[in-house]
Order: sequence, then C-alpha cells, then structure tokens
Amino acid sequence: MAQQLTIRGNGGHGELLQVLRDGKPRTRAELASLTGLARSTVRLRMESLAALDLISPIGEAASSGGRPPSQFALNPSARVVIGADIGATHVSVVLSNLNGEILARHREELAVELGLEVILQWVVTTTRRLLAEARRERRDLLAVGVGMPGAVEYRTGRPISPPIMAGWDGFDVRGWIEGELDVPVLVDNDVNIMAIGEHAVVFPHVADLLFVKVATGIGSAIISGGSLQRGAQGAAGEIGHVRVQRAGGVACGCGNLGCLVAIAGAPAIVRALREIGTDISHSHAIAEVAARGDVNVARALRQAGRDVGEVLSTCVNLLNPSVIVLAGSVARAGEQLLAGVREVVYERSTPLATQALQILPTQMGADGAAIGASMLAIQHGLSAESVDAMVAQTMA
Amino acid sequence: MAQQLTIRGNGGHGELLQVLRDGKPRTRAELASLTGLARSTVRLRMESLAALDLISPIGEAASSGGRPPSQFALNPSARVVIGADIGATHVSVVLSNLNGEILARHREELAVELGLEVILQWVVTTTRRLLAEARRERRDLLAVGVGMPGAVEYRTGRPISPPIMAGWDGFDVRGWIEGELDVPVLVDNDVNIMAIGEHAVVFPHVADLLFVKVATGIGSAIISGGSLQRGAQGAAGEIGHVRVQRAGGVACGCGNLGCLVAIAGAPAIVRALREIGTDISHSHAIAEVAARGDVNVARALRQAGRDVGEVLSTCVNLLNPSVIVLAGSVARAGEQLLAGVREVVYERSTPLATQALQILPTQMGADGAAIGASMLAIQHGLSAESVDAMVAQTMA
Repeated sequence: MAQQLTIRGNGGHGELLQVLRDGKPRTRAELASLTGLARSTVRLRMESLAALDLISPIGEAASSGGRPPSQFALNPSARVVIGADIGATHVSVVLSNLNGEILARHREELAVELGLEVILQWVVTTTRRLLAEARRERRDLLAVGVGMPGAVEYRTGRPISPPIMAGWDGFDVRGWIEGELDVPVLVDNDVNIMAIGEHAVVFPHVADLLFVKVATGIGSAIISGGSLQRGAQGAAGEIGHVRVQRAGGVACGCGNLGCLVAIAGAPAIVRALREIGTDISHSHAIAEVAARGDVNVARALRQAGRDVGEVLSTCVNLLNPSVIVLAGSVARAGEQLLAGVREVVYERSTPLATQALQILPTQMGADGAAIGASMLAIQHGLSAESVDAMVAQTMA
Repeated sequence: MAQQLTIRGNGGHGELLQVLRDGKPRTRAELASLTGLARSTVRLRMESLAALDLISPIGEAASSGGRPPSQFALNPSARVVIGADIGATHVSVVLSNLNGEILARHREELAVELGLEVILQWVVTTTRRLLAEARRERRDLLAVGVGMPGAVEYRTGRPISPPIMAGWDGFDVRGWIEGELDVPVLVDNDVNIMAIGEHAVVFPHVADLLFVKVATGIGSAIISGGSLQRGAQGAAGEIGHVRVQRAGGVACGCGNLGCLVAIAGAPAIVRALREIGTDISHSHAIAEVAARGDVNVARALRQAGRDVGEVLSTCVNLLNPSVIVLAGSVARAGEQLLAGVREVVYERSTPLATQALQILPTQMGADGAAIGASMLAIQHGLSAESVDAMVAQTMA
C-alpha cells in the first residue's frame, strides 16, 4: 500500500540529487534524514536516479553492524554540458562533465560583424565537434549555457539593445540553439556568467560577492545570499552608466553625460593616453604598454581605478559584499587599477562594510566566461525540476 | 514496514507547512504532489501538525468520486507573535496571529536615554500585557521580532556601533529577551523590518524591491530574488554615508566628508531652513511646516529628494528593482521629496532599469515597523526548521 502510493509521486528525485551535488558520498539513511523523505521512498528514488546513471554506488560506508550500507554519489560523467562565451572578437566553447571539469575546448577569433547566425552556427558545429572529440553521444548533452555581451532577458534568452550589434536586439538566441541541438539552452550576459564561474570555482562558500568587469564596457554581477541576482528586468549590475564626478560633461555612447564608462572604459583610457602622447593602437594594447612600465599608462590606470572605486564604494555600502573580484582587459592590465579601486573603496565605504572586504583580481583564465556558462548549464540541468522531469520522461 | 520507517524520519513537517503558508486550503493528495512526499508520509505528517493545532481541516474538497477528501489549511490562530519597534523616542509593540493580523497593540513615547534595559523591560512587560488582553497563554507565543535603529548583527541579535546610544554596542538584546520570555527572538535593524513588513503586506509578489528610509538617518533595505539581503556583516543598505557631489566638504557625524545624510537627513534640512530664516524647532516639525505650504520647506525637501535620488540612481542601475518605497519622517513630509527622487532617478538611471520602475511612498502606517518585526517572527517561527523542531519536541 505504502509502496504503491510512493510510486505514484514523481517528486523528490531532484531533491535527493541536490543533496548529492556537493560530490560527497552518502548512505540512503543519511539521505532520508537530510531530505525528510521516508527510507522506502529514498530507496525507490535512488533506483530511478541510478537507472539514469546520474548516481553511482561508492565503496562501502562504515556501519554500526550487519551488512554495510552502500554509499552513493553524483556520477560526474553521467552527462556533459556545453558552455559558450560569445565576445566582440572571439567565441570560446568548453565541454564539461557535471563537476564542471573541462573535457574539451575550442576558441576562435570571430568578429561579431560576421552576424549572429554565423556565430551561433559556429557554436553548434563546435559543440558537435567537441562531443566527438570527447567520445560522447548527442544524448549525453544535458544543457547548453551561453554568455553574450550586454543585457540579456534571461527568462526568454534574448539580448536587449546589445551595445555591439544593434541587429541582435530581441533575437531568440535560446530558441535558435534549442532548434539545432534539442536540449535546454540558458542565455545570460557575459558578466553574469563570469561571476557564476568565479563563484562556483574560486569562492563556493562566499554568499556575498560583487564581480566587476572593466574592459570596453564596465559592468558588474551581484551574488547576494549565495545566488546571482538578476533584478526585475535582468538588468542588475549595470554600473558603467553611473554618473561620476570627474566625468562631468563627458558624453557617453548611451546618450547621457558623465557616465563612468565614458572616462574609465578601455576606449576612454586609450584616448586619454593618446592626448598626452602615449600612442596606443587599440585597447588590448593597454596591458602590453603597462607591462613595459610606462608611467603614463600606470597613472591612467590608477585614475580609472579611482573612478571605478568611486562607484564601487556606493555598491559596497549598499550590498556589503565580502569579496569584490575585478576582471576584464583593463583590470588584467596590472596592479594599478586594483590599487586605485582599493584606495577609494577603503577610504569611502563604511568601516563595518570594509572590515572584512577583500578586493581581488579574477583567478579565472581566458576560458573563465565559458566555464561560467557551463556552470549555468549544470545548475539548470541538475536543478530539482529538471531531474524530476528527466525521471518522469523515462517512466512515461 | 514502510510506516515504521516513515515515523523514524522527523523531517518534512516544515516543508508541508511552507506550502500551506499562503493560506490556501489543500487536500493531502495535492500536498503529496506539491512536496514529492509519499501520500502515506503526508498523512502522518498532517496528523502531527494537527496535533500541534498548526493546521485544521477546512470544508470538503470537490472529489472525482467516493468519499470527498478533506482539505487542510494553516490555522492562523494556532500561535501568536510579538513585533517590537524600538525608535529614538518611541517603542511600539504589536501582537499578531500567524497571518500577521494585529490582535492587540501598544505604543509609548519612551526616550532611548532611559537606557536599553529599561526599554527592553518595557517590551517584555508589554508583551505579557498584550497576551493577557488577547486572552492568549504564554505558551501560545511562537517568537518575538525586534527592530532597532542602526546596524544589527542579525546572526547574534546584537547592535553594532548604534548611532543613538553608544552604550548599546554589542549588547545581547536577543539573549536578554529570550531570558525573560523563553521563546526565539530575532533582532534586526529598523529599516530591514520596515521593508519586510511592506513587502509582506503590500508587495508580496514583487521579487526586487528597494526600501528607503529618510529621517534623522538615511538607510535602505534590499529585497532581491524575493528575499531580504543583509550582506556579509549585516550592513547592507547603508546608503546614508555615500558621498554626493553637492555635499562637497560638509562634515558628517561618521567622521567622513560629503555624506548624503549630512545634507539630506532631517537635521541637515532643519539647519538649512534656519539659515534662510524658516525657523523649525525640531526635525519632526518639517511635515507640519510643509503642510502649511511653506515654499522654502518645499524647496528644501525637493533638493533633499534630488540628493537622495542621486544615490538611488546608482542603486537602481546596480539592483534593477521594480519598486522603490520611500518612508521615514522626511519622506512623510509630502510629495516634494518623492518628486525630487523621481526627477533624478528617471533622468539618470538606464532606460532598461527604469522602464517598469515604480517609486512610491510607504503604504504602511505608524505601526509599519512593528508589523514588519512580527512578520520576521512569523517567518522564523514557521520556517521548515522551526516546525520540524516543534514536532520533534512533542514526540520526545
């Protein structure tokens, strides 16, 4: 009777898998106690998850006597995910297992001017190639995460007024890729996915983190209470268009005056350096010239850091994060930007908010955004709802 | 066999009650499907919750045939909570049922100079009096929520460097009240509890809300993703000490220069009005004079609104809320402050972040903070963990 009733309910599989996502092996009794599910229910649910290969038995647990109960853990090889990072001049794609470990990767210099469909087609073709390289089947693919520059309506997977290619506005990126690969696709802006990656890989136990990208654009991503906060329209983190004092009447591409990015973004730094005779061909060269020890570049980066710091000091008072991570081409150009940010934030923010605040450069490499996109795909693909749906599908 | 195993697990009671907290009656079958718990488990758990009087059967549900299954709903009269709001010159205490409906209330003008223990003793005495008034027993009291001015370490229930009474720093407010009343006590800052109240009562379906108090101090509380975000040290929302351009070299009580509160807080407005000959005895009189239509007061409030708006425009870009609520004695003084805030925020923040943004005055009355404190007590007292612990206690 109880068994019959148990089989009717489809829920609870996802809940069990959430507990196992930390990779720690557990017995059925531990899982029953952690989830509040009856042991008989846990046994049935674990059988379904094992049939899907999502969990596997691990060794034998120490027992209080009798037959040792088996331990179970998430099987990280059960499925794979794709993380794709679409930038202004490159596209990166990584294939990862369910722990986020990279099994295959590919990066190509591709200008956005080629058009969105050409780039998305490249992502799909590369996905198929990476699956073949890693000797995995199409049906092993759990989900795809995609990061794009500019605001994205996360709910629908469509870019909103993208700053680089105006023609992409409202394009159904999610639907397009889903049509080709027939798996769930998550689309988010590049700063959000970089933050998800940094949080998952470097700061898994930090609940309040502010991730800041300083490059051609300036943006941020907020992790509060352990979760990424996207805001009401998915536009949270948009700090590049905050007015700063020193920007005064400087015109910004957004149509407003005095925005942070108009004086501290990479193009503004290049322009300022040219004006004082330090000729820099393009914004990526800032790091090269900085590495040669050019004093003008050092000074310009320090000032950009102070400008960014002015806005971040407000963010620190408002959000009280314990870590700020700085990334992007300007932040990578050396210690000067970081020093400028620290100088202003530690002076301006309240003592309580800065007493344990760390301001650090990103610890992720060039694939950081693609790794973050793969983490977003894992988060979705292993969510309680997705797992329950997978189980329901095999039962139907 | 299955029943025996089911009884061993103590979890799941709280989970069931979470589903019922919206007040909507549901059948056992609906609850089993919503929680993923087996129907046999739901039956047992519901019996325990009914034994604690937390749920009660409601009417008869429409059935597909046979005996109509009973519906169950949260019993709002099962327990009561206390919400206390400790201000600089008053203390308010409300006694509420589990829906947050006020059963009894008391407010008294009490100056903080009397000392913290005198005020806490008054809260405890008033709690006992309100219980008697509402004819409820001490054992009906589920939890107590307390709001205090200034930063509070929520985890420990201790004020941190309170701006009004320095002697309160680190005082164990939670432990002191728990020692007297022997129920869980939650302590938070006044702006957080006002935000919890406004969110629960007025905007229950809004996920991203920024609550701003403009009074002697200026502070805010952040609701993101549906939850209050306290930040790493519980110091989130501290916008009063953000530097604003117009404040230039004005010294602030915090020791820094150019803070928002130094030009837009109530004392700064009173000082500015005196300088131009509009004599106002104290900050509470701003509303009275504003009501008489004094043009200088209107102008001063409008400017304070612009100054607050300057900081809020950054907050809007960062958090992308869908609602900003303005409260506090200065905000209550009329439309001018609100108009000044709107003027700057709608001009400065990004179009995407403001396209659906509402900026509104609080819709809560003088008891708003006390009601918020009672909501905090309900949230804690009916949390899955607290309910599971209550059940475990009756079983032991």
